[in-house]
Amino acid sequence: MEARRPYDIDSVTDVAFAIFAERGFDAASMEDVARAAGITKASIYHHVPSKEALLARGLDRALAALFGVLDEPDARTGSARERLAHIVRRVAEITMSMRAEVSVLFRVRGNSTTERDAMERRRAFDAIVTELVLEAQAAGEVRADIEAALLVRLAFGMSNSVVEWYRPGGRTPAAEIAAAIEGIAFEGVDGEAQRR
Amino acid sequence: MEARRPYDIDSVTDVAFAIFAERGFDAASMEDVARAAGITKASIYHHVPSKEALLARGLDRALAALFGVLDEPDARTGSARERLAHIVRRVAEITMSMRAEVSVLFRVRGNSTTERDAMERRRAFDAIVTELVLEAQAAGEVRADIEAALLVRLAFGMSNSVVEWYRPGGRTPAAEIAAAIEGIAFEGVDGEAQRR
Repeated sequence: MEARRPYDIDSVTDVAFAIFAERGFDAASMEDVARAAGITKASIYHHVPSKEALLARGLDRALAALFGVLDEPDARTGSARERLAHIVRRVAEITMSMRAEVSVLFRVRGNSTTERDAMERRRAFDAIVTELVLEAQAAGEVRADIEAALLVRLAFGMSNSVVEWYRPGGRTPAAEIAAAIEGIAFEGVDGEAQRR
Repeated sequence: MEARRPYDIDSVTDVAFAIFAERGFDAASMEDVARAAGITKASIYHHVPSKEALLARGLDRALAALFGVLDEPDARTGSARERLAHIVRRVAEITMSMRAEVSVLFRVRGNSTTERDAMERRRAFDAIVTELVLEAQAAGEVRADIEAALLVRLAFGMSNSVVEWYRPGGRTPAAEIAAAIEGIAFEGVDGEAQRR
C-alpha cells in the first residue's frame, strides 16, 4: 500500500523551484513538477491556478528575504560602510540558502507580469543599496572612482555567481564563502578613509 | 525579389548562440535557428550535422579566446600578481565581446560529450589560474586567507556576471567595466606586499 504524502503548497514550491532552476522556467512543465513531487497535476492545481502562480510564490520568497535584510538592525545602524558590509554578507548567505529561488530570480527576463514585477522589485532593491553606496562614497568610506550603480552590480554579481557552483554540504561552508565575498568586495571597494 | 544572403557557418553560429543564450540550448531548436537566420533548416544541415555540432563550434570560440589569453605576453611575464591582473581584465573583456558564447559556456551542465568536454576545458583553465594564484599567494602578492580555488571562482564570478546585464553600446564602455572588475578584484585580493 502506498503511503499518502500530505503535500502543502510550500513543498510543491520547493520541488517546482528545484526544477525551474535546473531546467529553466519556460522549459519546465506542471507535469514535470507533479512527477518530481510524486503527486498528480490535479493536486497541484488544488493549491495554485498556474505555473506562473508557483513562480510568483518562489520569487516572493527570494525577494522577501532580500528586502528583509534591509530591515535587520545591522543594516540600519553604523556607518554606511558597515551597513553595506552587513547587506553584502547577508545577501550572499541568502543566495546560498535559497539558491533555487535566487537563481530563478536572476534569470527572469520579463516574459509575464510576474516576471516584470519581480524584476522591478529587484531593481528597487539595487536602487536602495546604490543610495547607500553613494552615501559611503560621499563619506570617503567607499572608493569613488567606480560609479555606484556599477559597483553594486559587480559586488552582487560576485555574490550571485555562487548559485552556479555552491552546493550545501560541500567542502567550503556557506559562512566561509560569505566571508570571502565580503572580504574581496570590501577590501576592493574601500576608499582611502578605510585604509591603514 | 528577395536578396539571397550568402550564409557561412560562422554567421549561423552567431545566430544560433544569440538564441541559445536567450532561450537556453535545450529549449532552442534548429527550426528556431533557421528562422532567425532567415534560411532553411536544410541549409544549416549543409554546414553542420546537428545542433550539438553548432554548440561545439561556439563553445570552441569562447574556450579558444580564454586559453589565448594565457599565451599573451602580459600573461607570461611580470610578477604573478601582474599576470593575474592581465588575465582577469582580458577575461572580462572577452566575456563582454563574446557574451553569447561565454554565457552558454557558463551554463553547460554536462548533458552531452560536447558539454562535458567544454566543462573539462573550463576547469583546466581555472586550474591554471589557480596555480598562478598559489604562486602569488606564496610571494605575498595576493591575500592567503582565502583559498586559491575559492578566490578564482569569486573573481571570475564577478567578471562572468556581466553577461547578465552588459549590452554593447550601453552607457558604460566595456573598457571601463573591465577596469572596474580588475580594480575591485585586486584591491580586494592584494596581499600585504601590494599595500602602501
